[in-house]
Formats: sequence, structure tokens, C-alpha cells
Amino acid sequence: MNDKHFSMCLLFDFYGDILTEKQHELFDLYYNEDLSLAEIAEHASITRQGVRDGIVRAERTLLQMEDKLKFVERFQRIQTGIQELADDIFKINKINQERYQNLEIERLLTDIHQKISLLTE
Amino acid sequence: MNDKHFSMCLLFDFYGDILTEKQHELFDLYYNEDLSLAEIAEHASITRQGVRDGIVRAERTLLQMEDKLKFVERFQRIQTGIQELADDIFKINKINQERYQNLEIERLLTDIHQKISLLTE
Repeated sequence: MNDKHFSMCLLFDFYGDILTEKQHELFDLYYNEDLSLAEIAEHASITRQGVRDGIVRAERTLLQMEDKLKFVERFQRIQTGIQELADDIFKINKINQERYQNLEIERLLTDIHQKISLLTE
Repeated sequence: MNDKHFSMCLLFDFYGDILTEKQHELFDLYYNEDLSLAEIAEHASITRQGVRDGIVRAERTLLQMEDKLKFVERFQRIQTGIQELADDIFKINKINQERYQNLEIERLLTDIHQKISLLTE
């Protein structure tokens, strides 16, 4: 999967529900199901050019949404921050296990770990 | 500030940049600057009904965006989760201070605290 493909799939995950039903379908078949333009054209009973136009319009809409709202960027920043927290938590857990074996700290760290898993799933 | 007012301001924070320039201005003057429809009409040199229509259209757009994308809901869930982490961190800090005074744990907790502040600002 190349960079454009990856970032389009990410944008689709975030903003896909804003597309028209038709654009949503074409985009999904092309990017997620990896069908060719010709295969989608046959499936959707429209021309190959019609498929291409629909996908290009969908791409443009998704890019404009991110350009204005920046939710992908914001979520990624939050996910990176949470991942960094997880690294610190791991270090505290190691110190506690090696030196204190404090059960309350262990319980709190497990709880934090579970919460981080929920936040990053 | 009533519930509708509050939730509209929140939606505007998230999705305001998707509105037309005019809608953005009218909405901002009404909800954030707290001007009356008559005051905005005078300011924008349009009718009071024109102002009302613009604001209603903006409200509808913002509500549709959240209905489709649910970013306000998602961000609030993340913020709640991070706040719960902060509570656990506070408890670990208390145990460490009272019993172990481990400087490495203290440093890691301070680092986590700063990261949480950045994530929730």
C-alpha cells in the first residue's frame, strides 16, 4: 500500500460518512476492496470514467475536510501522546516490580493500562 | 448559557470552519459575541430574517456534521478517559510520596502529568 493509498484510507475512516452514498461505495470498492476501475464500472453499471470521476470527487471532498477540520492530525497527535504515556507507565511498573511490589500501585497501573488500550483501539 | 447555547458553541468549535464565511460570521456574532439578531442585521447590512436564516442554516450544518462524524462525542470520550488516567496517576504519586520517595517514579509521574495537560488543553 503506497502513501497516497494509506492516507486516503485514513481520511475515509474519518470523513467517509460525509460522502454521498454513491461516492462512498465507489471509494470503498477502489481503496478498501482493491477492485480496478473496470471491475467497479461493471459492478456499478456506470462507465469507467464515471467511476474515476466519482472517486476523484470523493478524494477531493476528504482532503478538503481534513484541510478545514484537521481531525486526522488531531487524533494522531492524541494517539502519539497516549502512547508516550504508556511508555512511562511501563517504566513505573518495572520499578515497582523490581523494588517495591506494591499491590495498590500494580492495580492502578493495570487500570491505567486498560484505559490506554481503550483509548487507542 | 443554556444547554442549546453550550452545545452549539461546542459544535462551532469543532466544525465551524466548514461553514460559509457569512454563516461563520453570523453564528459567531450571535453565539460567541452574544449580539441580538437586530444588532447583527445592522452590523451585516442584511435583514433580521436574513440573519436568522443564516444562523439556522449554520446550526443545521453543524448538527448534521456531528450526526455523521461524531467527533465531539469521540473527543469527549477521549478527554474523559484521559481525566480518569490523571486520577490514577495522582493516587500513585501519593503512594510514592508517602512510602518510597522514589525520584525516578516521581520524575516519570511529572512527565505523565505534563503530557496529560497537553492532551487535555
